[in-house]
Amino acid sequence: MKIQVIQAILSDNDAVATENRALLDAAGVIGVNLMASPGAGKTSLILATAARLPANVSLGVIEGDLASSIDAETIAANGLPVVQINTGGGCHLDAPMIRTALPRLPLASLRLLMVENVGNLVCPANFQLGTHVNVVVASAPEGHDKPFKYPGMFAAANIVLLNKAELCPIFDFDVASFTAGVRMVNPNAPVIPVSCRTGAGLEAWLTWLLAQCA
Amino acid sequence: MKIQVIQAILSDNDAVATENRALLDAAGVIGVNLMASPGAGKTSLILATAARLPANVSLGVIEGDLASSIDAETIAANGLPVVQINTGGGCHLDAPMIRTALPRLPLASLRLLMVENVGNLVCPANFQLGTHVNVVVASAPEGHDKPFKYPGMFAAANIVLLNKAELCPIFDFDVASFTAGVRMVNPNAPVIPVSCRTGAGLEAWLTWLLAQCA
Repeated sequence: MKIQVIQAILSDNDAVATENRALLDAAGVIGVNLMASPGAGKTSLILATAARLPANVSLGVIEGDLASSIDAETIAANGLPVVQINTGGGCHLDAPMIRTALPRLPLASLRLLMVENVGNLVCPANFQLGTHVNVVVASAPEGHDKPFKYPGMFAAANIVLLNKAELCPIFDFDVASFTAGVRMVNPNAPVIPVSCRTGAGLEAWLTWLLAQCA
Repeated sequence: MKIQVIQAILSDNDAVATENRALLDAAGVIGVNLMASPGAGKTSLILATAARLPANVSLGVIEGDLASSIDAETIAANGLPVVQINTGGGCHLDAPMIRTALPRLPLASLRLLMVENVGNLVCPANFQLGTHVNVVVASAPEGHDKPFKYPGMFAAANIVLLNKAELCPIFDFDVASFTAGVRMVNPNAPVIPVSCRTGAGLEAWLTWLLAQCA
């Protein structure tokens, strides 16, 4: 009984996700679903990416949080079009939320849409949004065992960024063990250490991202 | 319809939580529900606490993870009785899971039970386990804005520990802003900066914890 209800919810969600994908495709916009633990650096990644995009790749942002508009204010202060979604306690974004947000963005003038999901390494992986790629941001302070403990999220990733990588020594973070954990559930996704603070590794991330937009 | 189903699940959960509480009370065990983001330091806090407990306060542990037994192995290697719960993808522990685990622990010889919930700042706050107190572990690398973004978790806390506090300067972590965020939703819970690595602040945490066991 419980499982049937959940399946029905997911089925409804996926139908709206298909609508969202059609809207993005019609506007020529590549959608990125950005997922991570709280505080891994999703907003910092968006800002670091925006600062490095070529002029012909215009970026819009959807911010998802249980409450507050802190992140949307930060994004808007950097001159990017942004919509804040408050889930009102909900642990993930879903396709109907994105469906509501899309008309509030200037899609026709965008090439890239970054959707910052709720900070959560579990639930967001189970809900399609209609975006084209899943980006998972891990961070060195969280420890290298996270792929073993949260396999569903890392299985869903098209690319894994390891943020705050310059702090790996401080946190005894073993990049080889982390990568092996990702490989247990995901044979193909690139794993790229980056630092949004120092800029290290961001060139490789931009190359990957722009290839999605090509 | 959806809300009614969720309410029914919560109602079932709370009934089992009441049973769990009765089992703990009958055995004279204080139960602690330990909640945090992934990698904030829940397992480290358990180990640091175990190393500092007086000899007459014996500790048992329940470890919750989607997958793996990494944390239970770490706890067992330190000589503590421990049960690992794998949620199989589920984003939180619930009372029936705890009900299954309790008979596998030597409750009669314990005084304290620490339950490490799934790393998640959202969902675990919504499910009573039958434990007596909620401990929320934040950490400096996550940033000081978390109480504003995840108010439900901080509202549910009986105490908030700010772990990795020695790294606040590296992460521009504003303790006053963090504390103000906690106070917006929680007027009473103590907020204690700690470091499981250096031991700083743990004496205040132990004092609070032992007061719960008195």
